[in-house]
Amino acid sequence: MAAAPTPGPLPREVGIVGVGLIGGSLGLALRERLGILPRGYDLPERLAAAAGRGAVEPCTSLEEAVAEAEVVFVATPLGRLAEDVKAVLAGCPAGCAVSDVGSTKRQLVEAIDHPRFIGGHPLAGGERAGVEAARADLFNGASWYLTPGRATADWAFARLHALICALGARPLCLSAARHDRLMAATSHLPHLVANALVEQAAELEGACRPLLAGAAGPSFRDATRVAGANGPLWGEIFLANGPELLARLAVFQRSLRELAALIESGSAQGLAERQEQVARLRRLLLDQPQAGRAVPVGIPAGASLAALALRLGEAGIPIERVEPLSDGGGCDRFTVWVEERAAERARQLIGGESGGASR
Amino acid sequence: MAAAPTPGPLPREVGIVGVGLIGGSLGLALRERLGILPRGYDLPERLAAAAGRGAVEPCTSLEEAVAEAEVVFVATPLGRLAEDVKAVLAGCPAGCAVSDVGSTKRQLVEAIDHPRFIGGHPLAGGERAGVEAARADLFNGASWYLTPGRATADWAFARLHALICALGARPLCLSAARHDRLMAATSHLPHLVANALVEQAAELEGACRPLLAGAAGPSFRDATRVAGANGPLWGEIFLANGPELLARLAVFQRSLRELAALIESGSAQGLAERQEQVARLRRLLLDQPQAGRAVPVGIPAGASLAALALRLGEAGIPIERVEPLSDGGGCDRFTVWVEERAAERARQLIGGESGGASR
Repeated sequence: MAAAPTPGPLPREVGIVGVGLIGGSLGLALRERLGILPRGYDLPERLAAAAGRGAVEPCTSLEEAVAEAEVVFVATPLGRLAEDVKAVLAGCPAGCAVSDVGSTKRQLVEAIDHPRFIGGHPLAGGERAGVEAARADLFNGASWYLTPGRATADWAFARLHALICALGARPLCLSAARHDRLMAATSHLPHLVANALVEQAAELEGACRPLLAGAAGPSFRDATRVAGANGPLWGEIFLANGPELLARLAVFQRSLRELAALIESGSAQGLAERQEQVARLRRLLLDQPQAGRAVPVGIPAGASLAALALRLGEAGIPIERVEPLSDGGGCDRFTVWVEERAAERARQLIGGESGGASR
Repeated sequence: MAAAPTPGPLPREVGIVGVGLIGGSLGLALRERLGILPRGYDLPERLAAAAGRGAVEPCTSLEEAVAEAEVVFVATPLGRLAEDVKAVLAGCPAGCAVSDVGSTKRQLVEAIDHPRFIGGHPLAGGERAGVEAARADLFNGASWYLTPGRATADWAFARLHALICALGARPLCLSAARHDRLMAATSHLPHLVANALVEQAAELEGACRPLLAGAAGPSFRDATRVAGANGPLWGEIFLANGPELLARLAVFQRSLRELAALIESGSAQGLAERQEQVARLRRLLLDQPQAGRAVPVGIPAGASLAALALRLGEAGIPIERVEPLSDGGGCDRFTVWVEERAAERARQLIGGESGGASR
């Protein structure tokens, strides 16, 4: 392989294809945090709106938006992503890393097996779609999933990782399949369930209807906040992640049947114990320890940064920062920073890889 | 019937049996808003804690707490309510109105058919139980359901209504059966569903577990906020409202099956349309018009205030204020205040009753 592009300093040339809520917010964040005005492309009306908000410099074609780019984000609807990512990879320079912001990853990553493409998904959004709702701070503190594959080039991964950190978000690596399973459990199923909660309430007979608004306290409002979210987007998400979503739905139904059986059997004790068990489970699932001090862990020469990032990520160890260690030529060594208490485990996981993959 | 007690001014003598979160908050609110220190009774340790917070003057027996009362609130656990309400009715003066704060109403109202007892349920609570979490502002702006029955005495209803308004809450009248159906749809089912959402997430295989906390965005956190809430309390609620809850669960399941079928059939269009329909339904269900100016509507002599309040309440017309019109003897005429735009409909509903029930 010819000398790879170096991750080097942060990229200055960024392209954004698709400038709705996420693409537009990316543009605003790049300007506000890094002084970068990205080149954008979308349908004329949307593009004009994004340019009007100062989120992008508008381009008349996808090719023009990506021709000089060091990083391109594709932020078009799920159903268009594969096609648009392919067009970007064909039109951007050989030293450009490409990512997307789609809510599901497996289908896309299977369709695009390319060293310069890394699937991405910022956990950010809003109740309103479109660039009108875009905000420069949309990604502040947000988790931003990256799903590097076997083919992923280290320099591309390192550059994208650094840029996402610079946007104020927190990159987390995991496989596309695991990403989709996690999202099914924590986002797609809750969206589906919120719909069904609204539909059952709407089914109440007429005399209850005028009373519903008063009766619906915080538990109903919170439980249904995402009901009916952005129709076309969520229709696509449900479909793109159909198998995982239906699998989680089956487990959810099993749990509901068990709870219903406890009610039918009149078991106050059983219900109280189940409540307490659920409370423990929720704490276990959601409690995150306070972030600690980050310490550096070296990646041995010859090991794949992207593969190690994936291995660490799937062990629940986020990489806080990637530092390229230039060795004078192309760069093929890195130091990653992880939380101090995870450093020992990170070294073990990295040790298992060293001498493995070669470039 | 002998001359009934007049609703008169706000009561000054209030008893509270059961001084946990709700009973304790009632005591604090009575003190802060009305300068009333209610007499309280509970198990010694809980009573001492409530007295220590200044929520009640502690009494050594239930009888002592209610012997001089004009209004008594029973705020003990659901499973004890019927027994405690009966003891209060036996021990309090003949001019005292009695209510409770339980989360389900049908079972209790069927057990206690008494002119001076009116089932109640403030839509207020907290994540922590016990008087330690009590707050004087717990009921500010809260809906407070009242379920008057056929036997309810008007003076008792008017006095309780006025006191609840004075505590900053909003009394809403409906039948016990309808209350329980509404709560099943808007609170009890969302609690059950939150449990099952947590349980399905906890079922994810080990490798996903360390990633869950990062993946669980606002939709999961909001959807499961009430999961595992106060075990003994919620076990009792699920059981006390079992039939209604299981009926709502069946409707919810039907809705989920339909959504799953749309996913299985790959219908992007069908899913997008369903999302939009759900969004409309949720707006219809939850949007409350801004409260308008209240206007007076007279209740004709001979009509039952409690029965009319129930009729108005079930038509979605809350009574903002009840004014007794003393006619020199006992009071048997009232003016109720309702929102101006509902006044015409309220007059029609009241007209249908006048000359009906007699006292």
